[in-house]
Amino acid sequence: MKIDLNCDMGESFGRYQLGNDADIMPHVSSINIACGLHAGDPMVMQRTVALAVTNEVKIGAHPGYPDLQGFGRRKMQFAPEEVEAFIIYQLGALQAFVSIAGGKLHHVKPHGALYNQACSDRALATAIARAVSLIDPQLILVGLAGSELLAMGARHGLPTAAEAFPDRAYNSDGSLMDRDLSGALVTDPQLIAQNAIRLAKEGLTINEVHHAIDTLCLHGDHPYAAETARIVKEQLRKAHVHVRPLLRL
Amino acid sequence: MKIDLNCDMGESFGRYQLGNDADIMPHVSSINIACGLHAGDPMVMQRTVALAVTNEVKIGAHPGYPDLQGFGRRKMQFAPEEVEAFIIYQLGALQAFVSIAGGKLHHVKPHGALYNQACSDRALATAIARAVSLIDPQLILVGLAGSELLAMGARHGLPTAAEAFPDRAYNSDGSLMDRDLSGALVTDPQLIAQNAIRLAKEGLTINEVHHAIDTLCLHGDHPYAAETARIVKEQLRKAHVHVRPLLRL
Amino acid sequence: MKIDLNCDMGESFGRYQLGNDADIMPHVSSINIACGLHAGDPMVMQRTVALAVTNEVKIGAHPGYPDLQGFGRRKMQFAPEEVEAFIIYQLGALQAFVSIAGGKLHHVKPHGALYNQACSDRALATAIARAVSLIDPQLILVGLAGSELLAMGARHGLPTAAEAFPDRAYNSDGSLMDRDLSGALVTDPQLIAQNAIRLAKEGLTINEVHHAIDTLCLHGDHPYAAETARIVKEQLRKAHVHVRPLLRL
Amino acid sequence: MKIDLNCDMGESFGRYQLGNDADIMPHVSSINIACGLHAGDPMVMQRTVALAVTNEVKIGAHPGYPDLQGFGRRKMQFAPEEVEAFIIYQLGALQAFVSIAGGKLHHVKPHGALYNQACSDRALATAIARAVSLIDPQLILVGLAGSELLAMGARHGLPTAAEAFPDRAYNSDGSLMDRDLSGALVTDPQLIAQNAIRLAKEGLTINEVHHAIDTLCLHGDHPYAAETARIVKEQLRKAHVHVRPLLRL
Repeated sequence: MKIDLNCDMGESFGRYQLGNDADIMPHVSSINIACGLHAGDPMVMQRTVALAVTNEVKIGAHPGYPDLQGFGRRKMQFAPEEVEAFIIYQLGALQAFVSIAGGKLHHVKPHGALYNQACSDRALATAIARAVSLIDPQLILVGLAGSELLAMGARHGLPTAAEAFPDRAYNSDGSLMDRDLSGALVTDPQLIAQNAIRLAKEGLTINEVHHAIDTLCLHGDHPYAAETARIVKEQLRKAHVHVRPLLRL
Repeated sequence: MKIDLNCDMGESFGRYQLGNDADIMPHVSSINIACGLHAGDPMVMQRTVALAVTNEVKIGAHPGYPDLQGFGRRKMQFAPEEVEAFIIYQLGALQAFVSIAGGKLHHVKPHGALYNQACSDRALATAIARAVSLIDPQLILVGLAGSELLAMGARHGLPTAAEAFPDRAYNSDGSLMDRDLSGALVTDPQLIAQNAIRLAKEGLTINEVHHAIDTLCLHGDHPYAAETARIVKEQLRKAHVHVRPLLRL
Repeated sequence: MKIDLNCDMGESFGRYQLGNDADIMPHVSSINIACGLHAGDPMVMQRTVALAVTNEVKIGAHPGYPDLQGFGRRKMQFAPEEVEAFIIYQLGALQAFVSIAGGKLHHVKPHGALYNQACSDRALATAIARAVSLIDPQLILVGLAGSELLAMGARHGLPTAAEAFPDRAYNSDGSLMDRDLSGALVTDPQLIAQNAIRLAKEGLTINEVHHAIDTLCLHGDHPYAAETARIVKEQLRKAHVHVRPLLRL
Repeated sequence: MKIDLNCDMGESFGRYQLGNDADIMPHVSSINIACGLHAGDPMVMQRTVALAVTNEVKIGAHPGYPDLQGFGRRKMQFAPEEVEAFIIYQLGALQAFVSIAGGKLHHVKPHGALYNQACSDRALATAIARAVSLIDPQLILVGLAGSELLAMGARHGLPTAAEAFPDRAYNSDGSLMDRDLSGALVTDPQLIAQNAIRLAKEGLTINEVHHAIDTLCLHGDHPYAAETARIVKEQLRKAHVHVRPLLRL
């Protein structure tokens, strides 16, 4: 039994600090680094890559919409060819920092509204898959379990990884509860750990289809994020679920 | 006798069109593509790279300050480590488009105020040279003939190319006349061609030191840019100066 | 018989020139000035306001989404309170330039995707109407004839003006044809003038409801814009339709 | 004996939280609100204005360079007419929120590099003074004691207020020690309070010229900011220095 623990990082910007990347890093196996459009900047990217190399976690790109003020969380209506070019841009920029640090870009996970829209919008999912495969067809595409994003990734020959969220409530049909609804965010570390164990062991049934889960996302942008990550990792270990990164071919 | 003709391109942004890249491209041997911070955007970069590959001109990066409103022409006081990270970011982003198009990044020429400040600011010149060599130590660093930028590039082991401007007036000490002064910009294509021939054949004497010129910059952001480039190239040929790109090792 | 002719202006940005504001200005009675988020910048706003004062045309605000790269044409999912704050910001900034130039802000017309979404999205239309009435309840809200935007403006006690587009094709139900469809844009000045006369005299029937038209929009971002505006104004005059601005109480 | 205590506020941006405005507000008499270019956004401005009205503190504008990533702290070379337009833009935007909340803009204090450069650059100081007087000639211009900014403000007929920094070390000639130097920032609340009392009572001697101090700046972007402000205000009271806002005519 094994699972990847991933966390979005490198979300600070200039004078603005967000998340405690250095504290959380030891407790996860993969990170997704913002690429400067919805969050992050060149210095933050450079610093976050260095931290990842030191901590020996796998480095993924976390591209998003060019909407810093909205943190990439507002839906935008991009044409597919625009999405493709914006993702290539962001992946290329991150790749440069990763190469210079002696690492290798390992996976790609879209951020925020781009992620959410690509769950069900096939044209958008195709544009993302296309951009990723143009950059490197061995990059793992991370997306919501059961989503169009993973389906289009597989169709473009990309290795894919199904993600679930142990700190988010799910609707009865297996979809994520809207984060603005009360109860949508689970904050008790023990509950999050229980969800993590169940998701890792049992997977998720969405619209009556069962999906194995490859990676669990932990959020890093709250004060107890590092402690939560530590507890989740420990409880997974006690439940005999081995935390290790996704396997890149 | 030979010379490179370069032109800054990919300076459009979203709805805003700047320059006639497609018309000028056939008349130059190298182009410098804006990387999205002072000008250009991901779609413009993708399109400009495709155009360069079709026209078989050498592709260079044209990184600048993150000041779109000021077109990268306002001096800014960046720390050297900030400049380094901002250049890596821009070069990485462009490199991705170039690789996908089957090309190879050939040279780097800083833009606007970054270029001008790096002529005499050693710390800045060092940061630029360092960023370029981290990306690829075989990239040619293009800078003003006789500048600190070229000196620091050479010190970092980079191949360098000395640039001159046939459409700009020079002061008697060999420095560029300020572009805001009257007479600073030469607009007659025949005069520009004469300057080009002289610069290619005789080089430039700056502060009593002679400098050979490797590349001539033609500006693309005015209505007669393509016609000027055509005339300059033709006159160079008639004067037995062969227009061909800088040699990348 | 009378009609207002309006044109979007002040859409240049830094080094980027868009539209020929000075040439078109004499042929219209109202202009809508971009406020720096989807287009325009402080210097452009200042210059455009000065031009409007000289030409004695009425000055309106043309607020849009903060998406310069997309020119405010991409749909975005803003919360109503975000839209309200973003519009107050833009109107306040423009108002300062107008006051200093001795003028008075006369009307507000949302731009691009914000305009289009507010045609049918009641929450968005309400947020816009609310922002405008907070700034000044005597500002005229300009929107598509028959739209939610005008309905919500009226409900908030704002004077409203119904707009139509003589250079755009309409669907049989009275809605605007999508600008990406072939034939959506009318370019022949005589045809545009005929449309203008018909719209001014007969109004528009949308979903079987008749709407009088208060203002006609002419586009300024193409080479023949000034000539088109001149012809439209002349043909309107010949057809005994008087071109004069909307009446602010 | 009386003094104004001011604090820079409204420096959050989108998802990024900076400073504890609500906690500090009760302990100061004036605040300076960022206007969306180097920090702040429309929602933050709206929220901060509301907070100021509730706390009955005087609202000033805190305009800066359009450099969000650098937090407006990097020197930039703006032309005076650019500075003028950028300040009008920012003041206008803030003024709209202030008017809607039933308040009145009270003073203007430039931010960061704009503030620092305007201390000694007369053309820049003139442009700022001009922009402020165009918006409202009764606005108080706040600047460093003994600076060109205050001199040019006075020359433009503006009321001015001399500022000093009790949490910053001063050089022996009365100039501010560079904030990057060790010891430049005073963090002990009691020391800051002692400095505040001395500055309020004795003023500051800069280059052998004595300057009375009208307002003291407290920084709000560190965890102990509110507690520090509380202590400073209390110690000032004990030392019989009355904390009250600058007097707007």
